[in-house]
Amino acid sequence: MKQKDFIIGTLGSHSALQILKGAKDEGFRTVNIVTPESEPFYRTFPFIDEFISIPSFAEFPSVEKELAAKNVILIPHGSFVAYLGSENNKNMKVKYYGNKNVIDWEENRDKQRNWLQTAGINIPRQFDNKHEPIQYPIIAKSYGAAGGKGYFYARNKTDFERKIKRFGTKQFIVQEYIIGVNLYIHYFYSPITKKIEIMSMDKRYETNVDSLGRIPLEGQKGLTIEPSFVVVGNSDLVLREGMLTEAYNMAKNVIDTSQKIVGNRGLFGPFCLETIITPDRKFFVIEISCRIVAGTNLFTHGSAYSWYYYNEPMSTGRRIAREIKQAIEQDKLDLLLD
Amino acid sequence: MKQKDFIIGTLGSHSALQILKGAKDEGFRTVNIVTPESEPFYRTFPFIDEFISIPSFAEFPSVEKELAAKNVILIPHGSFVAYLGSENNKNMKVKYYGNKNVIDWEENRDKQRNWLQTAGINIPRQFDNKHEPIQYPIIAKSYGAAGGKGYFYARNKTDFERKIKRFGTKQFIVQEYIIGVNLYIHYFYSPITKKIEIMSMDKRYETNVDSLGRIPLEGQKGLTIEPSFVVVGNSDLVLREGMLTEAYNMAKNVIDTSQKIVGNRGLFGPFCLETIITPDRKFFVIEISCRIVAGTNLFTHGSAYSWYYYNEPMSTGRRIAREIKQAIEQDKLDLLLD
Amino acid sequence: MKQKDFIIGTLGSHSALQILKGAKDEGFRTVNIVTPESEPFYRTFPFIDEFISIPSFAEFPSVEKELAAKNVILIPHGSFVAYLGSENNKNMKVKYYGNKNVIDWEENRDKQRNWLQTAGINIPRQFDNKHEPIQYPIIAKSYGAAGGKGYFYARNKTDFERKIKRFGTKQFIVQEYIIGVNLYIHYFYSPITKKIEIMSMDKRYETNVDSLGRIPLEGQKGLTIEPSFVVVGNSDLVLREGMLTEAYNMAKNVIDTSQKIVGNRGLFGPFCLETIITPDRKFFVIEISCRIVAGTNLFTHGSAYSWYYYNEPMSTGRRIAREIKQAIEQDKLDLLLD
Repeated sequence: MKQKDFIIGTLGSHSALQILKGAKDEGFRTVNIVTPESEPFYRTFPFIDEFISIPSFAEFPSVEKELAAKNVILIPHGSFVAYLGSENNKNMKVKYYGNKNVIDWEENRDKQRNWLQTAGINIPRQFDNKHEPIQYPIIAKSYGAAGGKGYFYARNKTDFERKIKRFGTKQFIVQEYIIGVNLYIHYFYSPITKKIEIMSMDKRYETNVDSLGRIPLEGQKGLTIEPSFVVVGNSDLVLREGMLTEAYNMAKNVIDTSQKIVGNRGLFGPFCLETIITPDRKFFVIEISCRIVAGTNLFTHGSAYSWYYYNEPMSTGRRIAREIKQAIEQDKLDLLLD
Repeated sequence: MKQKDFIIGTLGSHSALQILKGAKDEGFRTVNIVTPESEPFYRTFPFIDEFISIPSFAEFPSVEKELAAKNVILIPHGSFVAYLGSENNKNMKVKYYGNKNVIDWEENRDKQRNWLQTAGINIPRQFDNKHEPIQYPIIAKSYGAAGGKGYFYARNKTDFERKIKRFGTKQFIVQEYIIGVNLYIHYFYSPITKKIEIMSMDKRYETNVDSLGRIPLEGQKGLTIEPSFVVVGNSDLVLREGMLTEAYNMAKNVIDTSQKIVGNRGLFGPFCLETIITPDRKFFVIEISCRIVAGTNLFTHGSAYSWYYYNEPMSTGRRIAREIKQAIEQDKLDLLLD
Repeated sequence: MKQKDFIIGTLGSHSALQILKGAKDEGFRTVNIVTPESEPFYRTFPFIDEFISIPSFAEFPSVEKELAAKNVILIPHGSFVAYLGSENNKNMKVKYYGNKNVIDWEENRDKQRNWLQTAGINIPRQFDNKHEPIQYPIIAKSYGAAGGKGYFYARNKTDFERKIKRFGTKQFIVQEYIIGVNLYIHYFYSPITKKIEIMSMDKRYETNVDSLGRIPLEGQKGLTIEPSFVVVGNSDLVLREGMLTEAYNMAKNVIDTSQKIVGNRGLFGPFCLETIITPDRKFFVIEISCRIVAGTNLFTHGSAYSWYYYNEPMSTGRRIAREIKQAIEQDKLDLLLD
């Protein structure tokens, strides 16, 4: 089959604009699965060929047959698991870009931790054993927390016990709170070229924590402000060049390890290491995201890094489409789909 | 008349570089009205065809005749009202891009509030009634506050009363201080295409508030630091894609409402909604700016968003020039000038 | 000699990617001097023609002869003095871009202060005289502090005396701590065109200080967090346009003064003024860097400012290569090398 026999599609949310613009730039036809609320907005853009409207994303299964019939290749992003659940993703019959095995390894915090540790990645201490004293401050994270919801910070035991009561979930982990700056590194690993590329980086913009520093000590007196970490945007960053080698090596180790333990070709395509960097310039990886992340939305026209690899604007969305295009040309599409 | 019969001009300040570069990219001749201090700096750029020097911006009326004779289309920006006053803007005889009726609706805080409320926009609570108890923390804003000057924050009544004494203005409003992150959304509405475009977004860089978070609790002890909100720069941001539909709808409602209540074609061209986003992902609009804002200066070569609409670099300044060019071609210039 | 007779080279660190990509874009052959650890990473980029591997950067002198034989023009960056020391830089026999006289004026804090003061630049108060009472808060900086290491903040005398004991260096200065926002302005001065260009701007991303604001007052209680200023990245910024004239004038005065006091053609090529801006919109220059700075790494494809001068992507790295190329064409290379 040829490129013109395929359509690139995704859910109208998260990073759909980037994915569909990138697909169009690579010569694909595009389809956007939208809700009635968002359709008028998405219709203002010139690179979306078709719209399929569903009442809510949860009703995605009802259009699967139509998508399969159109020969759509679906590009999953953060909204896929959030809205459809991991089982619905794994059971999908449409051509799905990526390795579905990875979903479990990402979702289960113990498996994810095991993966990162096996890859030799530095991760925050976790307080699993109830007999081991917790060292404060800590951050508690519920299972399946996404978009910065389902986290809380505690500075000591009293604080922790007060907050855990209100937390309303039994599945959570307690990690040391690393004091350092956040950096999210966006990678792309191609099983066709066997190369890892550093596509871009970002810092999340979180409400309310990213506003608290603007209220001085005196101004905070008498106010009880609970910090929350809800992600509403992203801003750009570059990393000190002397630390790029380590950023590259971490990604390489994560990919190599995934090929051994995740099964079914391991992790490939776009992924993100979410790091905290301490004053001794040490990375702590607090999470891995195994697909395109929203921070890449900053780089529609390429990033400080992607221009080093490509003499043309290369977003992560476009990189995915380029990969699929090359796989079609080389008859290797089965390397990329699940 | 043809494009070559017009010159695009502005005051050498605020967003003049972007406006004049954009005009040149669209094929216009350009003129910059400068003061002697800034002329050598502006002369280092290759896209400004003519300079008119005046001792200070307040003396702008002295060159109006010359500008009218040259058939200059003036693009107003934030310095126009700040330096010339709203009356001088309204009385201007030169071709003026935009609807001058909007000036009053923007400047008068009650009218602006009325406009936004009629459009169904979520705005912070305002404490107008002296018999209604103020809920702290609050932010007080003088009428005509600009560039972040003329604001103060108060955490309780004592704090408020101490600060209001020193404030030196009788025209001010008291609003709840929303704890959340700031996001400034830059739009463009074209009465020619009838479309709203999300051009770009930014976060302001304010001194001293954006430095306070770097001094820890211990380090702030014994220092009395009064937070100030003076804008000295801007940095880039993208919004979570799932919130773009609401960002788009807010703009649509603001434009629709303006056509009903502002008169004379309503608001068109570039404008900005200044928002605060709370942890429940709710927008509060704290202000509307009805012209090009300084945050667009980040995007000389296009933004993450403008690349979605245009397959060429499109700043807001260039978008204005493109609009004027198309209006000239379609003989619709009277839709755009006042 | 012609362009093809030269190779542009640098150490694989700091801003090497930008320098070598820029050189390649201008048509030069490129060489990267790397360590075994970083070589695999640098080999993933397509614009580096040759690699020379040394066990550590300190062994650079061992390859000098080879570089001279190849007719390499070396572009120094922040790692040159950090890893090789100023004497090794001054004694280098390879073609060296820039004026080595500047090294002493930059490294010696008294000379640097003298230079800036002579240029009429506003700098923070320094407490030199032991009989003069220190006004707190202060920042103490060791001689040769780089990358944000070797600094501490003190809010009062007790705090200062406690920290100075642990500081472990005798050569340091004590400056007033200016409360305001940081802005790093990247310039380029060409002795060929005699023009100053504002290439770009950034804000540093420092650990841990840029994470502290995310912990509210209540959350910091009971924690003793020592602020540190270790630079691990950079994010982009634009300056209020009304302040650009002053930014331009400061650079002009710094260059003019350098031609009088530094000797040997003064400062030329890329440099950076590191500023703090206070709420009255006043610049304080806290440091000058006399070569390409890491903040320019954000702008591989040009910045909001460089697009105003050039209708093509112009990073600082590429600007250097363009300068050398033009000097070769005009037979003026001796204006640029030392």
